[in-house]
Amino acid sequence: MYMIEDLIRQNRSYRRFYQDQPVSRETLLWLVNLARISASAANLQPLKYALSWEPEKNAAVFATLAWAGYLMDWPGPGEGERPAAYLVILGDRDIAGGFGCDHGIAAQSILLGAREKGLGGCMIGSIKRDQLRQVLGLPERYDILLVIAVGRPKEEVVLTEVGPGGDIKYWRDEKGVHHVPKRRLEDIVVG
Amino acid sequence: MYMIEDLIRQNRSYRRFYQDQPVSRETLLWLVNLARISASAANLQPLKYALSWEPEKNAAVFATLAWAGYLMDWPGPGEGERPAAYLVILGDRDIAGGFGCDHGIAAQSILLGAREKGLGGCMIGSIKRDQLRQVLGLPERYDILLVIAVGRPKEEVVLTEVGPGGDIKYWRDEKGVHHVPKRRLEDIVVG
Repeated sequence: MYMIEDLIRQNRSYRRFYQDQPVSRETLLWLVNLARISASAANLQPLKYALSWEPEKNAAVFATLAWAGYLMDWPGPGEGERPAAYLVILGDRDIAGGFGCDHGIAAQSILLGAREKGLGGCMIGSIKRDQLRQVLGLPERYDILLVIAVGRPKEEVVLTEVGPGGDIKYWRDEKGVHHVPKRRLEDIVVG
Repeated sequence: MYMIEDLIRQNRSYRRFYQDQPVSRETLLWLVNLARISASAANLQPLKYALSWEPEKNAAVFATLAWAGYLMDWPGPGEGERPAAYLVILGDRDIAGGFGCDHGIAAQSILLGAREKGLGGCMIGSIKRDQLRQVLGLPERYDILLVIAVGRPKEEVVLTEVGPGGDIKYWRDEKGVHHVPKRRLEDIVVG
């Protein structure tokens, strides 16, 4: 068993956290550094990072996010189960006109690093961007690409296989375990 | 030192390989599986993978790729130093209208896995897409998002710091070592 397989398997999207267990600015910087030394298209490195790790700012960031679209009855984590920190991935339009998939590369490095430290998180793309721009005081030159929520996970997430009907919607069982159906390997290899 | 930091640091973009050291279909499937169990926006999992590991097909794929845009005098790896295999990341438009940064997440998982196995590679976005579509016999429903070249690396790649002029172009020294200037951590954190 290779370490990376184990780490990727454990690196699920977590949406409930021990909110009272802080994530320090130093830890966030360590995570940003993992993204910094990752690949970037044409090595342009147009990504920038805004950080939040203090309760008041966290609350303001939290208010701009939409959670778990498929869980219709769940408005997102309640007080006490919210992320302890956020990394906001920005695209600097003074550096590049587009950002390709650089933020995916960066986000994966960040979340794998978080997992190895016993943390976990979730990439969130459903964002009230104008509101978040105000919260963070961001100039117009930065596109808000992705928010990564981080904290010590307080839920169990398990991978299952997509059924014959092909439904990929994740769901939560009566014990609160979050189930994520993944397509089978043979169904994603072409030819 | 956390393992993942070491692995990400070692996971450079390699463009010259021991072409005669094959990468098996089994290894490619193991790499695809790492992408399979990685995050996908709204868990839609619209990515598919076409694989190449045999010399003849490799040659046909190679002919569709552009290499290392900043090395003006270098047309790409010569015979004997070419990748031993390719993974082509496709977006299935029957599943999603867009692919966000899913292919970045997938590519990072794949290349970290390759690195841990003693392999290495490079994400290539500069592709003669019509020609590659013909080589692979791909239906129109698949967007060609990214080609990942894979093999056992035959070059040294080192990270350096972007100088005061801010030039991010990588370069190769007289010993053939490839230098990649990365922005400083303090220059990519906003606020």
